[in-house]
Amino acid sequence: MNTQTDTAVSSPASSMSTAVILAAGRGTRMKSERPKVMHPLAGQPMLRYLIDNAAQVFDRIVVVVGPGMEDVAALAAPHAVVVQHDRLGTGHAARQAEEAFGTGDVAVLYGDNPLITSGTMRALLERKRRDDTALALLAMEPADPGRYGRVVMQGDQVTRIVEWADANDQERAIGLCNAGVLCASAGDFRRWLSEIRNDNAQGEYYLGDVVACAVADGGRVRAVVAPEDELRGINSRAELAMAEACVQARLRQAVMAAGTTLIAPDTVFLCVDTVLEPDTVVHPHVVFGPGVHIRRGTEIHAFSHVEGAVVGPDASIGPYARLRPGSDVGEGARVGNFVEIKATTLGAGAKASHLTYLGNATVGSGANIGAGTITCNYDGVFKHQTEIGADSFIGSDSVLVAPVRVGDGVITAAGSVITQDVPDGAMAFGRARQSNRDGYAQAFRQKLKNKKEQG
Amino acid sequence: MNTQTDTAVSSPASSMSTAVILAAGRGTRMKSERPKVMHPLAGQPMLRYLIDNAAQVFDRIVVVVGPGMEDVAALAAPHAVVVQHDRLGTGHAARQAEEAFGTGDVAVLYGDNPLITSGTMRALLERKRRDDTALALLAMEPADPGRYGRVVMQGDQVTRIVEWADANDQERAIGLCNAGVLCASAGDFRRWLSEIRNDNAQGEYYLGDVVACAVADGGRVRAVVAPEDELRGINSRAELAMAEACVQARLRQAVMAAGTTLIAPDTVFLCVDTVLEPDTVVHPHVVFGPGVHIRRGTEIHAFSHVEGAVVGPDASIGPYARLRPGSDVGEGARVGNFVEIKATTLGAGAKASHLTYLGNATVGSGANIGAGTITCNYDGVFKHQTEIGADSFIGSDSVLVAPVRVGDGVITAAGSVITQDVPDGAMAFGRARQSNRDGYAQAFRQKLKNKKEQG
Amino acid sequence: MNTQTDTAVSSPASSMSTAVILAAGRGTRMKSERPKVMHPLAGQPMLRYLIDNAAQVFDRIVVVVGPGMEDVAALAAPHAVVVQHDRLGTGHAARQAEEAFGTGDVAVLYGDNPLITSGTMRALLERKRRDDTALALLAMEPADPGRYGRVVMQGDQVTRIVEWADANDQERAIGLCNAGVLCASAGDFRRWLSEIRNDNAQGEYYLGDVVACAVADGGRVRAVVAPEDELRGINSRAELAMAEACVQARLRQAVMAAGTTLIAPDTVFLCVDTVLEPDTVVHPHVVFGPGVHIRRGTEIHAFSHVEGAVVGPDASIGPYARLRPGSDVGEGARVGNFVEIKATTLGAGAKASHLTYLGNATVGSGANIGAGTITCNYDGVFKHQTEIGADSFIGSDSVLVAPVRVGDGVITAAGSVITQDVPDGAMAFGRARQSNRDGYAQAFRQKLKNKKEQG
Repeated sequence: MNTQTDTAVSSPASSMSTAVILAAGRGTRMKSERPKVMHPLAGQPMLRYLIDNAAQVFDRIVVVVGPGMEDVAALAAPHAVVVQHDRLGTGHAARQAEEAFGTGDVAVLYGDNPLITSGTMRALLERKRRDDTALALLAMEPADPGRYGRVVMQGDQVTRIVEWADANDQERAIGLCNAGVLCASAGDFRRWLSEIRNDNAQGEYYLGDVVACAVADGGRVRAVVAPEDELRGINSRAELAMAEACVQARLRQAVMAAGTTLIAPDTVFLCVDTVLEPDTVVHPHVVFGPGVHIRRGTEIHAFSHVEGAVVGPDASIGPYARLRPGSDVGEGARVGNFVEIKATTLGAGAKASHLTYLGNATVGSGANIGAGTITCNYDGVFKHQTEIGADSFIGSDSVLVAPVRVGDGVITAAGSVITQDVPDGAMAFGRARQSNRDGYAQAFRQKLKNKKEQG
Repeated sequence: MNTQTDTAVSSPASSMSTAVILAAGRGTRMKSERPKVMHPLAGQPMLRYLIDNAAQVFDRIVVVVGPGMEDVAALAAPHAVVVQHDRLGTGHAARQAEEAFGTGDVAVLYGDNPLITSGTMRALLERKRRDDTALALLAMEPADPGRYGRVVMQGDQVTRIVEWADANDQERAIGLCNAGVLCASAGDFRRWLSEIRNDNAQGEYYLGDVVACAVADGGRVRAVVAPEDELRGINSRAELAMAEACVQARLRQAVMAAGTTLIAPDTVFLCVDTVLEPDTVVHPHVVFGPGVHIRRGTEIHAFSHVEGAVVGPDASIGPYARLRPGSDVGEGARVGNFVEIKATTLGAGAKASHLTYLGNATVGSGANIGAGTITCNYDGVFKHQTEIGADSFIGSDSVLVAPVRVGDGVITAAGSVITQDVPDGAMAFGRARQSNRDGYAQAFRQKLKNKKEQG
Repeated sequence: MNTQTDTAVSSPASSMSTAVILAAGRGTRMKSERPKVMHPLAGQPMLRYLIDNAAQVFDRIVVVVGPGMEDVAALAAPHAVVVQHDRLGTGHAARQAEEAFGTGDVAVLYGDNPLITSGTMRALLERKRRDDTALALLAMEPADPGRYGRVVMQGDQVTRIVEWADANDQERAIGLCNAGVLCASAGDFRRWLSEIRNDNAQGEYYLGDVVACAVADGGRVRAVVAPEDELRGINSRAELAMAEACVQARLRQAVMAAGTTLIAPDTVFLCVDTVLEPDTVVHPHVVFGPGVHIRRGTEIHAFSHVEGAVVGPDASIGPYARLRPGSDVGEGARVGNFVEIKATTLGAGAKASHLTYLGNATVGSGANIGAGTITCNYDGVFKHQTEIGADSFIGSDSVLVAPVRVGDGVITAAGSVITQDVPDGAMAFGRARQSNRDGYAQAFRQKLKNKKEQG
């Protein structure tokens, strides 16, 4: 999701660096059973973004979780995890990680603030390490500063963070707002965290109070201004939706810059790992799940849903195609409307155009799968394979009861149930013969009519 | 649609209150055969919103309709309906309801101005009843005041409404605009309506002229400022679309605030009565029709279309699932892609995953409905029931010809047509045996090829 | 796409007029194999818009293409095409068309600037022909003038175009920006083009330099201000998407103004030639391809995909209906969910409601096509016709193997394969009889269980 082309980290100093990610909040305004940082953005938990981006910049990562948050701890692994048992504020949370601070520099990030790019993290760390900076913090200049805390500057130094409630009119007129993210040396952080108090209305220890500690120490505090979009916190489902929109906008811009046509970008949903090669065309209303690679010249038509699939080059997908994990659609192949493919390989030029389900199947090159074909791949316990040979023609409305092998150049008659292998070049029948009964339709209708009249 | 949690009305005074809704306009700019107020927003006619919200605030409701608008009158029932036979303007329309004014206070609302919340209606009525107010009116401060009439104030009193065309530069600089909605005592209204004249370019009686009557009377006129979003009129399909967007935005905000994840809110369409419990997740591109209740932990995947359905908890719907009225999907059940369900109950843990139509059916818990299964529930006149027992396994591409009962623990062979009941634990076959004809496919292709070469 | 109701051109003067369209650019920022002007907007190449709109205003059109751009030349036909062999700038490109200038007035347009309406083209030509104008140019007043070249005016005359890089602060404060589009007499153009030099950083001949030539000549240069939306250039996929959004917005406004309800306009995609009659309703998430005509009173439900189809009046389409070219859906007919229709006529009141594929078929009025019906219209080489008579009832999951004729009033039994013609009023069967085997399901499950336990 980090759209900057960062190379691996090269720490500007020889000293170590540690990112502490506060992820213990329950997020009551989310009204969810799920810990806040586990809510997904573009298909992966928001915490994942922070961990992946931080790992590009910092030597070590420590995640502070709440009690009972095993899923968060599992996501954080193999990074260090610390449990905050009591909810006594962000300062208290950071202090729980104290022992894991190590030496060198420490940055504190927020699990519900997941849109910070690695570029911004690096800028923060580098600012800390430049000049005589004791504490570096992230600030922003939001379009609407609203009730954010304001950053009071004197020259290039921060002299004070003032909360909205405490600010006078002059301070409220300041456009520079505090984003809460901080970086200082491990030693300084430990000392400041031991100094902050909870003598406030909420009875909480606020991490932001270390700024005053640093200033009181006579240390230089400096601000790095980052885009508002990276610094938005997520406290509600509405804010989650706005963050998703932000992530999607970044992903869409990136694929368009790389040469993909998105006819209507706002209606296309991407995943962090979606690969769309140049000269692919994505029509309106398409959803990509994880693990997708679309090769050059492929067209994804409207209302398609694609995940875990390698497609193309020059293939045609949809409209209304669903590709599920394990789909491999070959060059020039076609998956049409109301067709579902799962764990299935379609050879070059093969076609499944209408109302079809192919699961656990391999389809040879040039084969044509008729409308309404269904692979019967599941017996209630096991999944079985269906093999269809090159250039075969599966008649419409065929059922292929796996395990079964249909050879090369085979034709199956429309409406057949195929339960046994079919040798190359053979034609297979598995359907009843038609008989007509003259006048029966009329008679049947008359019977229904009589019944209806009788009530 | 009223997102405020209004409790039942408690009239602040003991006197009666009446809302008169003007709904006689044909709306020529809509270019429609349908009366303007019958065009739907979020699935119900716009007039419905006004009636429902007014009913929370006013004791009585009177709807003024045009001649021949039986459908509007039917919608208004059981409230009073008055017909305006001649189209002589809003003042004339309001006067038609004069006899129905009763005693107490009367507010005049517009049928094509349906986004006013009950909270704003109540504020208007309460303003009328406070101090020595003779007439209370709704005003707004639009982002672009454009050609709206301006409200001229002196202190807290309205002294004049001036139309754009008649306003001087100073008046045009006023940001407060008239929304047209008025509230006064029945007696005052009757007198003022008898005073207004039609000596204007259009030859119409304008309701707005009563403001001048009130001022001339020496009455106090006061304004209640309401959000622009509530006061937008609907005169064209484009404005109808904007009103729909406004209604949808309110509905989406409300469900997100209550704990539902909408991954892409702008692509999800809700109805006024859609209930989504906390921790439901709605993926992009989903449409909800009327009568939906989704229970906790359920996930609605992309491209699903759900109406008249109770689902969950912890169920999985879609992608591409269509639930039609009478769908009851049990705990942990699953309705997959290209599956349509109608008047059908799916038991706990039951699954219908692919390309299936279930109509007028009951499916027992744990049953698995194979891909391509179709209930044949209609004989051209009557609908018949299909019963499928618990833990049964319906083979792919089965046809179930109703009325029919498949017992518990049954297996039907793939591709079978089931016309008779199947006892518990039995396996049912209804398909032809397969036969292969060696070399026939090759021969058939050769024949086609020859035919093609011959033209 | 030109939303103005332009009538055929009536040249205001008797002299000839020629539009030169520069379309030789490769558009490297598009990262595409395809020439830039061939990328589509609303389903047709962007160059098409320019050619069609220019053809309404100018007597002759000349398109300048790059070497090897046969597809661009083919699109331009029957208009004149000139090849620019070397890429030496816009001035050089225009000069390639010199011989085709003819007499009269010449306007130079850009192939990657396709949103200019014919109204604006006409205004430009008329401005050239009014007063003593030697050169008329298009200007705009963008919301963000950014790095556009600025138009310096003196009274009603342009004195200079100044590039952003060369402009002083005062010039940068000018809001009027150059759009690059010019109109002058053929003779003047030829002379000026011979005067411009390539002594600049890029070593290119810039068409814009003719403005200085005109001023140096003592000629009057005048500007026509056009909306920014018409003058946006397309240099990247992101700008292509913005242009698409602009085209779609115009198309949506036009259909709404004509009396169609688009419940959620931003989710509906139209083509330039989409015809929606008044009182049609289009639900959210609908895509129209080329060649669609929807008749009055028809409702297009969500997730429908319609191209090459004539529908209605009073028909019902979708949700999830796909109409492909050659679809003709009669009055009051219904195409339901997961139904695909191609080269097929549905008579009045006919219904295909669920999971059906009809290709190369005619369906009589009042016929009912059961769920899961599939026409088997393709034998691998030829397409064959299926005829279904009026008031016939095709049982669910039927396969109709074409060529085949089902008469009027026929019933086919559910699950039948129909390979032979069925006479009027007959009932046709083509399915196996069901047999139940008691206890077999239990035994089968036990076998699977054992197998699973054995691993």
